[in-house]
Amino acid sequence: MQYSFAERTKSMLASPLHFMRSLSTRESFISFAEELPAEELFPLSSLEAAAAAVISKSPAALQYGEPQGYLPLREWLCNNFKQMKHTEVVAGQILLTTGSQQAFDLLARVYVEPGDPVLVEHPTSPGFLQILKMQGAVIVPVEGNADGIHPEHLLQQMESIRPKLLLVSPNFTNPTGVLWSLERRKEVLEICRSRKVLIVEDNSYGDLHFGGISEKEFYSKYPSLFSLDEAGKGGQVLYIGSFSKTVVPALRTGWAAGSKAMIETMVMAKQLADWQSSHFNQCLLHYLLESSTFDILEHVQMLNREYEIRLKLMTELLKRPAWKGSRFEIPAGGMFLWVKLPEALDSVALLKCSLDKGAAFLPGTLCYTNGEGREYIRLNFTHPGRDELLLGMNLIGEAITEFTARS
Amino acid sequence: MQYSFAERTKSMLASPLHFMRSLSTRESFISFAEELPAEELFPLSSLEAAAAAVISKSPAALQYGEPQGYLPLREWLCNNFKQMKHTEVVAGQILLTTGSQQAFDLLARVYVEPGDPVLVEHPTSPGFLQILKMQGAVIVPVEGNADGIHPEHLLQQMESIRPKLLLVSPNFTNPTGVLWSLERRKEVLEICRSRKVLIVEDNSYGDLHFGGISEKEFYSKYPSLFSLDEAGKGGQVLYIGSFSKTVVPALRTGWAAGSKAMIETMVMAKQLADWQSSHFNQCLLHYLLESSTFDILEHVQMLNREYEIRLKLMTELLKRPAWKGSRFEIPAGGMFLWVKLPEALDSVALLKCSLDKGAAFLPGTLCYTNGEGREYIRLNFTHPGRDELLLGMNLIGEAITEFTARS
Repeated sequence: MQYSFAERTKSMLASPLHFMRSLSTRESFISFAEELPAEELFPLSSLEAAAAAVISKSPAALQYGEPQGYLPLREWLCNNFKQMKHTEVVAGQILLTTGSQQAFDLLARVYVEPGDPVLVEHPTSPGFLQILKMQGAVIVPVEGNADGIHPEHLLQQMESIRPKLLLVSPNFTNPTGVLWSLERRKEVLEICRSRKVLIVEDNSYGDLHFGGISEKEFYSKYPSLFSLDEAGKGGQVLYIGSFSKTVVPALRTGWAAGSKAMIETMVMAKQLADWQSSHFNQCLLHYLLESSTFDILEHVQMLNREYEIRLKLMTELLKRPAWKGSRFEIPAGGMFLWVKLPEALDSVALLKCSLDKGAAFLPGTLCYTNGEGREYIRLNFTHPGRDELLLGMNLIGEAITEFTARS
Repeated sequence: MQYSFAERTKSMLASPLHFMRSLSTRESFISFAEELPAEELFPLSSLEAAAAAVISKSPAALQYGEPQGYLPLREWLCNNFKQMKHTEVVAGQILLTTGSQQAFDLLARVYVEPGDPVLVEHPTSPGFLQILKMQGAVIVPVEGNADGIHPEHLLQQMESIRPKLLLVSPNFTNPTGVLWSLERRKEVLEICRSRKVLIVEDNSYGDLHFGGISEKEFYSKYPSLFSLDEAGKGGQVLYIGSFSKTVVPALRTGWAAGSKAMIETMVMAKQLADWQSSHFNQCLLHYLLESSTFDILEHVQMLNREYEIRLKLMTELLKRPAWKGSRFEIPAGGMFLWVKLPEALDSVALLKCSLDKGAAFLPGTLCYTNGEGREYIRLNFTHPGRDELLLGMNLIGEAITEFTARS
């Protein structure tokens, strides 16, 4: 039969993200396009022990659980907020989700009407842009610099519209890797407070910071907007986090933290969307986090040391002749390097050539809503091992050389 | 701050389902309200072995997976369709979801516009009604009898409106437990085909059938609408299934099967909603299903034998004096008994009294959209053990006696 899909489905059909994903599963293909952690660093033996313990302890771990998520894991998060982020949160303020993607999707479903203006960092996360499009939001970009979004531009954009929310990622913005200054965080929070605009703060990448500083130290220097808003007591900020980058992605455990009123509404949307995320995975994760054989702080420090080395290698490779004229800022954390291509190069055309050679990157256009970004690419440096980094960057380099020779 | 939630959120706020869930987690509380399988029958040792094998085999099981779901598990489902349900399906026609709830939610998101009329069995699944409300559908009930929905009433309801889809559950309709006759299946499919109305067929309960007949025999006698439509080649039927009732709920693995065009669109919505369900859980489930220590056919036969005993016990208990005047049909499978209360009893009022005594059921009103169903209750017979069944039914019986004495 001929289907008549909902109007909103059409924007979704145009997304090239799906195509990218299926490509990268090909054998011997090197992808810098996605945001995958390094699987050779997964804590496999601790996970195996945790799975055995959880299953043998009680069948309850395999039964339906709470739509809001396993209480002990939410309590663990509260304790982590307190110890590491100087923030007092109670378990009722947390909803466990299927990754950070679902946390934002649920928020959008309960909060955004078709036609609502939504402010976003410019450029921003392709996955979150898709959610906003599906929800029919009018996406309004806010420009920024190395300290975060410009307060002046934020105010300017607010003059003509009443935005429903502002979506930001102050710790290593996807894709630019920008780490907002403390001053900028305070300014932006104050502006949104005075205008009563909800802030959605994605902190999926915050724990991945380089330079050897501890988690506690990092969050002292760079408190989340959520912390500055006293853990959402004022309800100004909805915070999004995830274990996908710090433990493993396949347990699909992220969370939203905010005011009780907001979280309670999101819980109801969660229940409607899929009843609940995997209770088993949440039990397993909680067991792992509490087990004596696994220390998440040490684990993440180890990840950060290795990711910093990979980033350094990537920036070294960008000094090779093929990349001459490319420009980038070295991020202090996160998973991406945001590169402006040598003059006159179009990232979408370059991608086609690069795919033929067996390597992929994310074309900058996917991080914008208006066709901008053709001269940018996003490179992930956490997934490829060092050999792959070398080979993949060479393959893209070859593609660039061919293009430059032609023009 | 004061939130301005989206308009559609309001219908959701009224849902009492959430309240029921949180109650039933109380200690020593007996709930017949939900649809939980018996956790003492979970295949724990096989699951433990599967988890260990999957984790130690490769870190890839803990990495991000495919939005559409783990290919070998989709292939297993294709083989199961072929062997047990005489139906040829290819892996591209299947999307793995977070339970059957998400399968229907994704369909509704891509297919239903606010204001679209949607036909449903009358009464129908509370969880699915919530999805339709959230999507802004106009819910149009179709009456039925012991053979399934009435073709005449279906045609009559189609006269004045152009429905977007028809939602049915021919194998043990939730809540009534009706098993549609083959004749009725063919008639309904033909009507929807001629009117070009998509059918969504929920088969979450089909494998739980009593009377000792084999799975193959059952599906020969009662082929799904999807099978009758040649496995969705015509695209007339979207089929929904789940491992929640046959293996364990906490792996949160359900699926949608349909035409490639429909599934591809749903995959994009899936990616947007949460990227993908747990790849780890899908790998674990696949390993379990292929392992020599676990035979899903035998396992489900064992469940069916035990569930049939529990159902029999429940119907015996309904013969006690307190329940005099109640009426019900004994279902040939599924998880629920749909009981019309002794005259003049209101299920919502009775529930309050029953909750005080420590037992719960689902009031019939939740299975309707228009306030009907006050004289009905839905009792789950799969989760409570035999002792709990006895005690819980007595507690509700006491509540009934009090009410009857008062009036």
